[in-house]
Amino acid sequence: MKIAKELLYPAPFYNFLSYISDSDIKGPILDCGSGGPYPKQALFTQLGFDVIGIELSEERLEIAQDYAKEHNLKLQMQLGDMRSIEFDSNYFGFVYSWNTIFHMTKVDIKKAVGEMIRVLKPGGLCFVNFTTVESEFCGEGEEINPGEFTQIIDDEEVLHTFFTDEESDRFFDDLEIEILFKEKRVVDKKFEDRIMRDSYIDYIVQKK
Amino acid sequence: MKIAKELLYPAPFYNFLSYISDSDIKGPILDCGSGGPYPKQALFTQLGFDVIGIELSEERLEIAQDYAKEHNLKLQMQLGDMRSIEFDSNYFGFVYSWNTIFHMTKVDIKKAVGEMIRVLKPGGLCFVNFTTVESEFCGEGEEINPGEFTQIIDDEEVLHTFFTDEESDRFFDDLEIEILFKEKRVVDKKFEDRIMRDSYIDYIVQKK
Repeated sequence: MKIAKELLYPAPFYNFLSYISDSDIKGPILDCGSGGPYPKQALFTQLGFDVIGIELSEERLEIAQDYAKEHNLKLQMQLGDMRSIEFDSNYFGFVYSWNTIFHMTKVDIKKAVGEMIRVLKPGGLCFVNFTTVESEFCGEGEEINPGEFTQIIDDEEVLHTFFTDEESDRFFDDLEIEILFKEKRVVDKKFEDRIMRDSYIDYIVQKK
Repeated sequence: MKIAKELLYPAPFYNFLSYISDSDIKGPILDCGSGGPYPKQALFTQLGFDVIGIELSEERLEIAQDYAKEHNLKLQMQLGDMRSIEFDSNYFGFVYSWNTIFHMTKVDIKKAVGEMIRVLKPGGLCFVNFTTVESEFCGEGEEINPGEFTQIIDDEEVLHTFFTDEESDRFFDDLEIEILFKEKRVVDKKFEDRIMRDSYIDYIVQKK
């Protein structure tokens, strides 16, 4: 049976939507790392939210815009670096980053999390997810720093950073936020005749 | 911002929907333990699926029907026991049970899982979730059998059964199924000024 495209986005977003729906905060949504195939921004756009995406890679920005054209969607998206977000402080009602932040070094993640919170209004909500050391890919490739591995995927060098259960909490330590929701997920999924293990920690935090 | 009611169901269902959408199997959906407030069946009904719910408790059946009336929905729901499902074998395309099966003893869960698979067509998909020993309520109340606790909630005696990470796999051991997806979740959630810990294992299995 065919199901409407806007219902097939990653499941954790529907929990974030539930928090957004219960919130009184107004203001646009920021998607950090918005490019690539199947842009997540489309879910929120189709629900009527005002969403702005920023993306570091020109190529991934184009892929997302091609998707938008193909699906007759208007996605507001621009080149941008989440380590230094070109928006004023307290501008967005909500900000999220999906499967993006763990492609940076821990030093850069610290900057990026700080920036996501900076651009958020007081009371606004932030969703962000990390990969954990229980992911099967943890340990593959060259470890350039503890938990930071450069791995070769499709002939390209990709950085993957993995965290222990409490370690990712530390990125929020000196920020004026409250953790409303933290979910550690260990996913065993059949993929091409074998079981693949991924593991994530998802956060929903509120700016004070 | 207000979001359509049908987008605010538990997040793991949207992953199950993604599997359903990729499936070629036809046939109705069975909801095991369908009663109570916010019946999950409403999500699938509103998406156009043919859903039948069974519910052990007459009171919870009425609560769900009141919800249906209030929201102008037609929910097909009847009294029934998932330990002995009154439908023919190979009848349903999909079957699910949400936050229900862990209110039974392990002996009864064994029966119920077997019944869910029996009524499923070959190739059909089953979603079911269990609570794990990492839930903060594990250990509270009287332990009537290993991992089975009777707890008093709102003056009523409620059974809660908790599992270790691999233990719940055993319910599928002698069934003709394949586990496509298994997700262990440890959820820390702010609730009334404190952090509450729940933990679940969700399965999506396919009948061979």
